[in-house]
Amino acid sequence: MLTSVGLLDASDFAGIQQVLREIHQVILDGKFVIEPGVEDVHSQLEKILVERLGEAGKKIHSGRSRNDQVLTAIKLCLRDHLGQIAVQTRGLFDRLLTLSEQHRDVLLPGYTHLQVAMPSSFGLWFGAYAESLGDDLEFLLAAYNICNKNPLGSGAGYGTSFPLDRELTTRLLGFEHPNVNVVYAQMTRGKSEKTAATAIAAIGATLSKLAMDCCLYLSQNFGFISFPDELTTGSSIMPHKKNPDVFELIRGKCNRLQALPTELGFLTTNLPSGYHREMQLTKDCILPALQTIQDCIRMTTYMLSNISVKQNLLADDKYLYVFSVEAVNELVLQGVPFRDAYKQVGADIEKGEFSFDGTP
Amino acid sequence: MLTSVGLLDASDFAGIQQVLREIHQVILDGKFVIEPGVEDVHSQLEKILVERLGEAGKKIHSGRSRNDQVLTAIKLCLRDHLGQIAVQTRGLFDRLLTLSEQHRDVLLPGYTHLQVAMPSSFGLWFGAYAESLGDDLEFLLAAYNICNKNPLGSGAGYGTSFPLDRELTTRLLGFEHPNVNVVYAQMTRGKSEKTAATAIAAIGATLSKLAMDCCLYLSQNFGFISFPDELTTGSSIMPHKKNPDVFELIRGKCNRLQALPTELGFLTTNLPSGYHREMQLTKDCILPALQTIQDCIRMTTYMLSNISVKQNLLADDKYLYVFSVEAVNELVLQGVPFRDAYKQVGADIEKGEFSFDGTP
Amino acid sequence: MLTSVGLLDASDFAGIQQVLREIHQVILDGKFVIEPGVEDVHSQLEKILVERLGEAGKKIHSGRSRNDQVLTAIKLCLRDHLGQIAVQTRGLFDRLLTLSEQHRDVLLPGYTHLQVAMPSSFGLWFGAYAESLGDDLEFLLAAYNICNKNPLGSGAGYGTSFPLDRELTTRLLGFEHPNVNVVYAQMTRGKSEKTAATAIAAIGATLSKLAMDCCLYLSQNFGFISFPDELTTGSSIMPHKKNPDVFELIRGKCNRLQALPTELGFLTTNLPSGYHREMQLTKDCILPALQTIQDCIRMTTYMLSNISVKQNLLADDKYLYVFSVEAVNELVLQGVPFRDAYKQVGADIEKGEFSFDGTP
Amino acid sequence: MLTSVGLLDASDFAGIQQVLREIHQVILDGKFVIEPGVEDVHSQLEKILVERLGEAGKKIHSGRSRNDQVLTAIKLCLRDHLGQIAVQTRGLFDRLLTLSEQHRDVLLPGYTHLQVAMPSSFGLWFGAYAESLGDDLEFLLAAYNICNKNPLGSGAGYGTSFPLDRELTTRLLGFEHPNVNVVYAQMTRGKSEKTAATAIAAIGATLSKLAMDCCLYLSQNFGFISFPDELTTGSSIMPHKKNPDVFELIRGKCNRLQALPTELGFLTTNLPSGYHREMQLTKDCILPALQTIQDCIRMTTYMLSNISVKQNLLADDKYLYVFSVEAVNELVLQGVPFRDAYKQVGADIEKGEFSFDGTP
Repeated sequence: MLTSVGLLDASDFAGIQQVLREIHQVILDGKFVIEPGVEDVHSQLEKILVERLGEAGKKIHSGRSRNDQVLTAIKLCLRDHLGQIAVQTRGLFDRLLTLSEQHRDVLLPGYTHLQVAMPSSFGLWFGAYAESLGDDLEFLLAAYNICNKNPLGSGAGYGTSFPLDRELTTRLLGFEHPNVNVVYAQMTRGKSEKTAATAIAAIGATLSKLAMDCCLYLSQNFGFISFPDELTTGSSIMPHKKNPDVFELIRGKCNRLQALPTELGFLTTNLPSGYHREMQLTKDCILPALQTIQDCIRMTTYMLSNISVKQNLLADDKYLYVFSVEAVNELVLQGVPFRDAYKQVGADIEKGEFSFDGTP
Repeated sequence: MLTSVGLLDASDFAGIQQVLREIHQVILDGKFVIEPGVEDVHSQLEKILVERLGEAGKKIHSGRSRNDQVLTAIKLCLRDHLGQIAVQTRGLFDRLLTLSEQHRDVLLPGYTHLQVAMPSSFGLWFGAYAESLGDDLEFLLAAYNICNKNPLGSGAGYGTSFPLDRELTTRLLGFEHPNVNVVYAQMTRGKSEKTAATAIAAIGATLSKLAMDCCLYLSQNFGFISFPDELTTGSSIMPHKKNPDVFELIRGKCNRLQALPTELGFLTTNLPSGYHREMQLTKDCILPALQTIQDCIRMTTYMLSNISVKQNLLADDKYLYVFSVEAVNELVLQGVPFRDAYKQVGADIEKGEFSFDGTP
Repeated sequence: MLTSVGLLDASDFAGIQQVLREIHQVILDGKFVIEPGVEDVHSQLEKILVERLGEAGKKIHSGRSRNDQVLTAIKLCLRDHLGQIAVQTRGLFDRLLTLSEQHRDVLLPGYTHLQVAMPSSFGLWFGAYAESLGDDLEFLLAAYNICNKNPLGSGAGYGTSFPLDRELTTRLLGFEHPNVNVVYAQMTRGKSEKTAATAIAAIGATLSKLAMDCCLYLSQNFGFISFPDELTTGSSIMPHKKNPDVFELIRGKCNRLQALPTELGFLTTNLPSGYHREMQLTKDCILPALQTIQDCIRMTTYMLSNISVKQNLLADDKYLYVFSVEAVNELVLQGVPFRDAYKQVGADIEKGEFSFDGTP
Repeated sequence: MLTSVGLLDASDFAGIQQVLREIHQVILDGKFVIEPGVEDVHSQLEKILVERLGEAGKKIHSGRSRNDQVLTAIKLCLRDHLGQIAVQTRGLFDRLLTLSEQHRDVLLPGYTHLQVAMPSSFGLWFGAYAESLGDDLEFLLAAYNICNKNPLGSGAGYGTSFPLDRELTTRLLGFEHPNVNVVYAQMTRGKSEKTAATAIAAIGATLSKLAMDCCLYLSQNFGFISFPDELTTGSSIMPHKKNPDVFELIRGKCNRLQALPTELGFLTTNLPSGYHREMQLTKDCILPALQTIQDCIRMTTYMLSNISVKQNLLADDKYLYVFSVEAVNELVLQGVPFRDAYKQVGADIEKGEFSFDGTP
């Protein structure tokens, strides 16, 4: 771009491109280092270019500031990760749908208030979490769209008088749009990270809830699901114990993610417009979280690939009354007004005469 | 819908429709009351229908539970408010763009680290907040999409054996899709409210930042903007004081909104699937917030309609050096390598020989 | 105090005291009103005094600002409520200890990872929550100490040149100390409320956890405890349901309190020193919370006064292995090294030969 | 203790003590390693003891579980850090008091609503933050008291049938009390960390506010304070810039700490009683925070040791009216009723006749 607007000439460009390609290979080889005393990767690149090319190297910072360079790198990184997270979420979604199909007719009790309430099925249970992830993708898409805008050329937040071609860098970097306003471009520092954190937290909330269900359903008091021994931890002395450590860790890690938007909120709230140094701290917040959510999606997918569901759960006496609503509905379908049917079934139950053999 | 699937006959339907229309008029007249001992509006409606129509009235609860009725009402309410918020946000966006155009060439110092850094303009400043709202609409749209799905027919979260036509109710209520999975439909209780809260908080963060800027810029130490006396509060004894109460209240109210997703998160985190009674408490959280954000958008729009910006700010000596970067750039455009131009201008400044008369 | 430093003379004082006593009686009679156009209770009092006493009434604002008046009222209010909360917490503590004594020998399974692990007792379970409240009182005391300092005389945060006797007002208002530094006195606006919120939230966390246990233990899958029908909600059609609505609401209300310090944090974070108008919004946050925690303590105490615990829980086969650790310990006490005893009991269990008839 | 209750004999004890002392030296030498496949430090210690001592080594786990071992280590660690933080806070408190004394008579404008309001002084400003830290120590003490209780002997949360002497271990480990109830002891997992986080966050809020003031006061628009060049960052091209990076980082790091109680809250809220695996994650939250707050206290103390304050600030015209309240007070002290004096000074100001030469 600098060449296209005349800030570099063709031979400068050729030299710079050549050196950058060599550096890229060094990076791929894992041998790139930021030397002591050099502030960051951007300075290191400039240093190498100046050492190798002299004058030409000194020109590449034209129209740049560290601010918009770092911001651009953050947005590229967020965009990349959010894309990967979407793909992984889709994988878990498919796994849940497959399980939902597979166990469509295996019943389990449905609870309200943690009280046994009505018949449900493993098909419904798995499917619910699939649909939940579907909704979570709405936020992921919103975050992706917000991050997928090019801040390069915004300088330190007040633009530059250089005749930069921001449309060209937008195209070259694969951004959908530029951040048009340079003051706003700078405002997206912190906001982009918080936006990504919010999207991640939404998926995390779904995984955490699923993990809580799994922990409960693995308890001896429920016994709805099981996993191979190698996926639970136990104790030779308490062979009945199948500790759901993996789900507990998913739950915990995803619950920590719920606090991340708040953490980023505290970092940025009530700061006047313009760059402030602590914005650098957002990287410590968001980068591990991007990894965590991917780990948790992967672990959940893997665990679910190994889940077994218990058959004939509803045969247990304590679940008898889950069919009471069905009995009412059957009467209604035979023409009895709802409130009358309701009273009749209630009376049967009270007299101990309730039974139900319909297929729900 | 109940008629279309045969749970009501045509004459039941006609009677019910007639009574509901009469009740609607009573509501419009502001005379509708929920009688003592009646649980909520849904029970009150059923009670009136039974009193007036007998058997037919008893039938309307067929295939319903209070859970999905309330959930449907919440989603309709959220959808409606989110739509209004989008419209209001657009109004503020337009106001900001107009101001941006109008004050395009009025300069003010741009800050980094709260230090005077580079020339900026009121045009950039207003425009930045417009673009910020544009990005915030991404989250608003995500929330709208999540809320705009029909849970009716999901019963208490485990569906019903009645042959309900959920596609029909979806169409009649203007939802874009049904919540397909009934267990998931119930899971959106709390999640929908949190989703809306997140979208509201995003807009709130933009308003809060703008309000912080305004409070600072109204300080005697900046003096960048002013408002008519009737929009600030003062004191007859301190006539210099123009307290920015409106912006302080906007800032405070919008900052409180930042905590709302956390509040809803604490309500719902680690609850196993299925309805729990405290989900009723979400209404206390979200309903006032839906009002607050609309008030804040309206107040901000009104205040900005009355803003005055100060001319010739950069003539003040303390802002002289904002042009140092421009001076460097000018040299670069004349062919001096960036790092050399940078050193030369730095040397001029150190010798007290810096001046700049270019138009940035 | 104003009289003692010579800002009021004796007859002014007598008149003011007389009128204030009459107003106090009006307040007790529930007939006190703040007239339209009068800013707050402090202005209303001054208005009445001026109307009745003329010059003398105009003097009472000497050395005051609305800021320190409101702040003083807030601190008196917080101090009063925190004291009441301590008393109520003590009441719940005593109830828990009594229950702990009473059910000392009634066993229930202890869980780790939600897996049946070792024998516990209702005595331990009730006692744990008593001790938890004891620790929570540490934070309540800290908050009380922070609030129990007198800001009166700090004016708008920069003191006053009047020769006020702040030690005297401290004594008269029953504060333990003055806020010595007037700038700090103003800083306690928001901080006092947040401090109280933190203390309240700590008690709330204990109540919420207890409520979660109760909801779980009331589930048919546990069945550890029960309550009279009038304290649970049910359904004539699902007579097995004993919905723990009261505990769910306690859990929800106490979980909302967990977000309160964050809400107050967002209100105040990154505000420079000095009063800002949004500090008035803290009252909307903290006043309802002070009531909520008291309601929740009262409800919990009442519910626990009516709890029944199930006897002989451990006779159920699914809890057999809770005694495996006891069996190991018995061997150790007979001299077998721990790790060897552990292996031996593990082997017995694997061979299906485990039994235990000791009294744990 | 195990020896005193007969679970170890004297020669076992002598051997174990000897080996532990050797291991301690290895740790001091920085050569201690946890071998691959060994779960944690506690297992490693046991492994070494068994390798060296055989039977005796196997006995040391008697009456222990990993749960109470880890919990004890956490509490010792928290107690130790909280103590150090108190000492450091005291150091900063002293520095602030010294500065307060030193600059007692150097005036600066006091602000309300970020508007110039009344005369203040650097003495008041420094002193305010000292007193703020004093109040913060109330929470630190509360946290210290909660953490300073001995959980050892609580096993996995349900105690042990071994005749442990918990009073003796309490004394030996220097705890003030035992956690009496073993179920509660386990409940302090997560709660202790959250308690410490709350205390840290309180100090962090004070430091953050001070840092915000410093950033503002360093701005060219205030210019109230300055620091040696080596403590600010600048740019050779913008020599006027004295970026307050250190204070921005303190502000940011301390603001991140504000979210820590929320993060720990999300980890633990709505978990039923008993150990859950994710409680291990609290270490990732709290350990870095204990370091961060100490770094921030140290950095703040160091910066303040190098602060310069500007003299004669109030001579600037824009601060003229800060004396208007003083003028009113002077009239009141001469016998004019407050509201009349207020009106008179207001009128003078309006006529442009206000002046003030008193010494506030």
